[in-house]
Amino acid sequence: MSESEKIPVAILGSTGMVGQRFLSLLDDHPRFRVTQVLASSRSAGMRYAEATRWGLPTEMPAWARDLVVGDANALPDEGRVRLAFSALDASVAREVEATYAEAGIFVVSNASAYRMDPEVPLVVPEVNADHLDLVRSQRFGQGGIVCNPNCSTIGLVLALAPLHRAFGVEEVAVTTLQAASGAGYPGVPSLDLIDNVVPFISGEEEKLALEPAKILGTLEGDARGIAAAQIVVSPQCFRVPVIDGHTLSVSVRLAGDPGRDEVLRAWQDAAQAVPLRYTSAADRPQPRLDRDFSGGMGITIGRLRPCPVLGFRFVALSHNTVRGAAGGAIATAEAVLARGLLQGGSEGR
Amino acid sequence: MSESEKIPVAILGSTGMVGQRFLSLLDDHPRFRVTQVLASSRSAGMRYAEATRWGLPTEMPAWARDLVVGDANALPDEGRVRLAFSALDASVAREVEATYAEAGIFVVSNASAYRMDPEVPLVVPEVNADHLDLVRSQRFGQGGIVCNPNCSTIGLVLALAPLHRAFGVEEVAVTTLQAASGAGYPGVPSLDLIDNVVPFISGEEEKLALEPAKILGTLEGDARGIAAAQIVVSPQCFRVPVIDGHTLSVSVRLAGDPGRDEVLRAWQDAAQAVPLRYTSAADRPQPRLDRDFSGGMGITIGRLRPCPVLGFRFVALSHNTVRGAAGGAIATAEAVLARGLLQGGSEGR
Amino acid sequence: MSESEKIPVAILGSTGMVGQRFLSLLDDHPRFRVTQVLASSRSAGMRYAEATRWGLPTEMPAWARDLVVGDANALPDEGRVRLAFSALDASVAREVEATYAEAGIFVVSNASAYRMDPEVPLVVPEVNADHLDLVRSQRFGQGGIVCNPNCSTIGLVLALAPLHRAFGVEEVAVTTLQAASGAGYPGVPSLDLIDNVVPFISGEEEKLALEPAKILGTLEGDARGIAAAQIVVSPQCFRVPVIDGHTLSVSVRLAGDPGRDEVLRAWQDAAQAVPLRYTSAADRPQPRLDRDFSGGMGITIGRLRPCPVLGFRFVALSHNTVRGAAGGAIATAEAVLARGLLQGGSEGR
Amino acid sequence: MSESEKIPVAILGSTGMVGQRFLSLLDDHPRFRVTQVLASSRSAGMRYAEATRWGLPTEMPAWARDLVVGDANALPDEGRVRLAFSALDASVAREVEATYAEAGIFVVSNASAYRMDPEVPLVVPEVNADHLDLVRSQRFGQGGIVCNPNCSTIGLVLALAPLHRAFGVEEVAVTTLQAASGAGYPGVPSLDLIDNVVPFISGEEEKLALEPAKILGTLEGDARGIAAAQIVVSPQCFRVPVIDGHTLSVSVRLAGDPGRDEVLRAWQDAAQAVPLRYTSAADRPQPRLDRDFSGGMGITIGRLRPCPVLGFRFVALSHNTVRGAAGGAIATAEAVLARGLLQGGSEGR
Repeated sequence: MSESEKIPVAILGSTGMVGQRFLSLLDDHPRFRVTQVLASSRSAGMRYAEATRWGLPTEMPAWARDLVVGDANALPDEGRVRLAFSALDASVAREVEATYAEAGIFVVSNASAYRMDPEVPLVVPEVNADHLDLVRSQRFGQGGIVCNPNCSTIGLVLALAPLHRAFGVEEVAVTTLQAASGAGYPGVPSLDLIDNVVPFISGEEEKLALEPAKILGTLEGDARGIAAAQIVVSPQCFRVPVIDGHTLSVSVRLAGDPGRDEVLRAWQDAAQAVPLRYTSAADRPQPRLDRDFSGGMGITIGRLRPCPVLGFRFVALSHNTVRGAAGGAIATAEAVLARGLLQGGSEGR
Repeated sequence: MSESEKIPVAILGSTGMVGQRFLSLLDDHPRFRVTQVLASSRSAGMRYAEATRWGLPTEMPAWARDLVVGDANALPDEGRVRLAFSALDASVAREVEATYAEAGIFVVSNASAYRMDPEVPLVVPEVNADHLDLVRSQRFGQGGIVCNPNCSTIGLVLALAPLHRAFGVEEVAVTTLQAASGAGYPGVPSLDLIDNVVPFISGEEEKLALEPAKILGTLEGDARGIAAAQIVVSPQCFRVPVIDGHTLSVSVRLAGDPGRDEVLRAWQDAAQAVPLRYTSAADRPQPRLDRDFSGGMGITIGRLRPCPVLGFRFVALSHNTVRGAAGGAIATAEAVLARGLLQGGSEGR
Repeated sequence: MSESEKIPVAILGSTGMVGQRFLSLLDDHPRFRVTQVLASSRSAGMRYAEATRWGLPTEMPAWARDLVVGDANALPDEGRVRLAFSALDASVAREVEATYAEAGIFVVSNASAYRMDPEVPLVVPEVNADHLDLVRSQRFGQGGIVCNPNCSTIGLVLALAPLHRAFGVEEVAVTTLQAASGAGYPGVPSLDLIDNVVPFISGEEEKLALEPAKILGTLEGDARGIAAAQIVVSPQCFRVPVIDGHTLSVSVRLAGDPGRDEVLRAWQDAAQAVPLRYTSAADRPQPRLDRDFSGGMGITIGRLRPCPVLGFRFVALSHNTVRGAAGGAIATAEAVLARGLLQGGSEGR
Repeated sequence: MSESEKIPVAILGSTGMVGQRFLSLLDDHPRFRVTQVLASSRSAGMRYAEATRWGLPTEMPAWARDLVVGDANALPDEGRVRLAFSALDASVAREVEATYAEAGIFVVSNASAYRMDPEVPLVVPEVNADHLDLVRSQRFGQGGIVCNPNCSTIGLVLALAPLHRAFGVEEVAVTTLQAASGAGYPGVPSLDLIDNVVPFISGEEEKLALEPAKILGTLEGDARGIAAAQIVVSPQCFRVPVIDGHTLSVSVRLAGDPGRDEVLRAWQDAAQAVPLRYTSAADRPQPRLDRDFSGGMGITIGRLRPCPVLGFRFVALSHNTVRGAAGGAIATAEAVLARGLLQGGSEGR
């Protein structure tokens, strides 16, 4: 596809950690082409290369360097883009994303503002792409908002979805060991993560408790709502001295009392459609060695064994700023495209 | 008490990490005086200062420098010590500790060899000092063996004991974030703990699953056995880039459905006799800030809240080489002394 | 000395990292008693325990918890204190410290504002306590200002001073590996110090280049100025993932071509008056093992060997927030007291 | 080129850290094909996937999994390979590499055994590929040995070579901050690198002092020896908590007193032939962000400024296990090929 045929997209919150991941992952994307980068008014008017403290080991894409940063709080330019990825701070996301959606733009958001909004689909595309149909009846006119779950939720849901489909997930006790990049830059002070771990991440446990049930829920018959799954999640979140990669220690109670082989088979079957792998190595998954599986979009699961309290225990790991943020949002946008929700014009919607 | 009145003690495995803690903590101890340091035959005959790669920030005690290291595998010298602390490797502990006990020496061991032996008390002195009476009927003649629990078990049991006494603990799901010092030196390679965590510690989960029930169990009427408590523990152990301090993420099901205030009160009541504190800070306990509470002998608990799966969730932290190893063993030896089990002569036993 | 006989002191910038060290080190100080804690207007009016995110492993002193934080920018209360320790940010230190000094208060400052002021002594008390006499002719009336050097400078000067006295130091090439606590809290983002080092600390190299020559300089005959020493310093500063303890890699050219033994003897002689030790261990000093030498006030030197370029090479280490900040400032205040510069009244000055 | 036309190569020491890098970098190499993997007798006979604790984030190449590990200490199979890359431990490299060379195999070694041997070229191919001609007169018959420099030397030489060519390098004072992977696995204990740096790496300073003068030396007229350059290097080596990437703090005295722009131009000119970049960012290079430049084969230099002692100061960084080990050795083998030294048969030599 020639560059001019690609869909022009905007990145809201383009200068932060997740914004940078969006630009990096959209470099040479087959269907999307970044034409606008937006950030706070403080950066507006600067060249992207000036406005950004690039923090990825890969180079800033050459085409991004000279893009002029726009003001995310200004009204979107009429017709310049049809799709926007949002990596905005929670504090401004609610208003800006609504403004964009009302201007007819399809917003795929990494922010938490609309995740639990009953009109807004919360999507892990391999798991519940059908929920995307909710946008047809959203209040935002020609535009729409779709949300990416919290970075920890995504890993948990990718591991649980095959089990929920096969057996039904009833109860989950999960302890997370989350990477520093999840807090952005500057984010977590180094004094908190040298020779230390921190047993608290503001707002995180609430998200981990609520989001899985919505994602694993069922689209109602009229595609106007989601019936949440009956899953109880008890989370404890830690920040640990890791750059990228959230590790989850999971105990789960499944319906129907399946055996270990059946659980493994459920994951194996899912691996056809999802970049999911089970490792039998005794000491894996580990963030440094497993986070880049499948370009950072994959999930690695290990240490499945009986849990004398809930039934099964395992450890899962996924990349929090690729799979858990920018990469996940791009995959969702691809699903939006595949479902014909981004045709342009009202008929397409 | 003059030095000559103190009880002469030996340290088995004196050159390793925990051995060093023993020497450091016994410096100026009111009742014990280290007169013998023992290690593998490789170190035997060397001065302690030569044989040891001292790895503590505090200085090696001056009196220890010129002690000549004895061979732990040789027969103990008749009558030189009445008490020995063991920090031996699991591989040799079983045989050496038995040899010492059979020679009439009271061994307080940090090794796992005899922990689940039905004749051997497994003691956290603030919790089950009464179990020490088991030694009176041990097979080792004039000597005896008492075990210190695993370093993670101790923190868990200190947190659970007041709840078990007050309500009864039924089920526990625990994820540990364990410090590198728990593996000794050289121990965990740095390549495993830079930008990484490891979801496995060999043998650790088995210990954490079994030991609490024994410690929280009841001494049988004839003081010849322990009836284990009916507690189910489901553990997942991680190694994290922390020097000292094991952090525990705990979900617990208690009998009788107590309220949050009752749980807090149980801990508060226990704090009379145990160096236990509850912190209401949202992001504590943290290893670097809380491990040295009460000279490293204390436990800090925080984040108590409802767990929708098991009832309550909290985070606990204790120092793994002080409270969890050398310091705990010394406290146990003090309890042994207080109970009159170390009088010398058979009448004392 | 009873509490009421102690000198009442204020801490400017009391809630930050260095401020906390001041409070911690002044707990039970034989001559000083903290009666005022001051901070930015944001904290003013709050209890100290509320205003402060305490970040030390030792507990906040009980007497500090209920002190009401004063506004550092307000005029000092007449006569409440005669001495103030300043841990203010560079941005406000210049003005606030002058205001305090002009109000008749003796300010011992950890900020850089006045360090290179020709009227202000820059003091490492074991090295150049005689420079303190400069304050008698300062422009601040009854009060005065004395500065503590930069945290890296202090370690370097403690190592060089004995060599300068014995032989003359001519040229120094120094690479620093500095701890995160030097930047305060929140300070350095963890994303910069996990699996990483940073080859730049803003403003640090300028200080390290200039301060040693002033400290090692000579008080002029009339005690109205300092003739800087003729020492050329070439610095490169790194931030490394260490909590406390700055490590210095030093190459030095000495006058008179002394031998290795003479250099060692110069340090050994100095060790009578300074908490300085030379270690012959091949792999020391190390921050975690050596920073707490002499309560954090000491300097540990090692690896002395010929440098084929400048003559000698060695590695030195000192604690940056104790020796290099609060502890050093307190030692300087003790020297001020010992020299009779804090008698109260103009006659004392 | 079809697989069968590629040159079959062996990897000596294939299961360690650097051996793994060799396999990873030779996956899909246009000219070389790994047909033999060798290791200590302990691993011999096992499948490579069984014998190896794979420690790279990228996957083990599929073709490697089922290779049977040969015994590096056995005689090489006649004629199976013409080229061997050696990542052997220093302790066995001397003998094994000679055995291979005498069997007619061309050995490109990452070990230090033969680096300072006057018959053996020590090569950074972009710098001194002409030294390779030394092998024509080596004592090893049809085979030969070429050495890769120490991992720190390579970064230093890549930075200095353009300056040496343009101006002449006279004196160098260098402090290294070296990554943990340089010590292999298990290598440096984590207790040494959490909240710590270590000011010593056994044998490293000796290498850094000697190797640059040989590499920057001149091939004598008859191609039978190297006249070392007159460069004095004073090194201090640190181990720091970084996975990959050695950082060098360099002060250098150049002949002819060039200006800063001339130095920059020398590097810029070199960048035509060498993957070398200069960064003007104030706080770069940093290991995590710059080590992967040019696939890990590049060097990043920054912070060039006057050094009041030696003339110039800068910071350089390169990847120690790619550029500094396996990748450098492969580039050298490519240069060997390009120079016609690996034609097979004596005529080729």
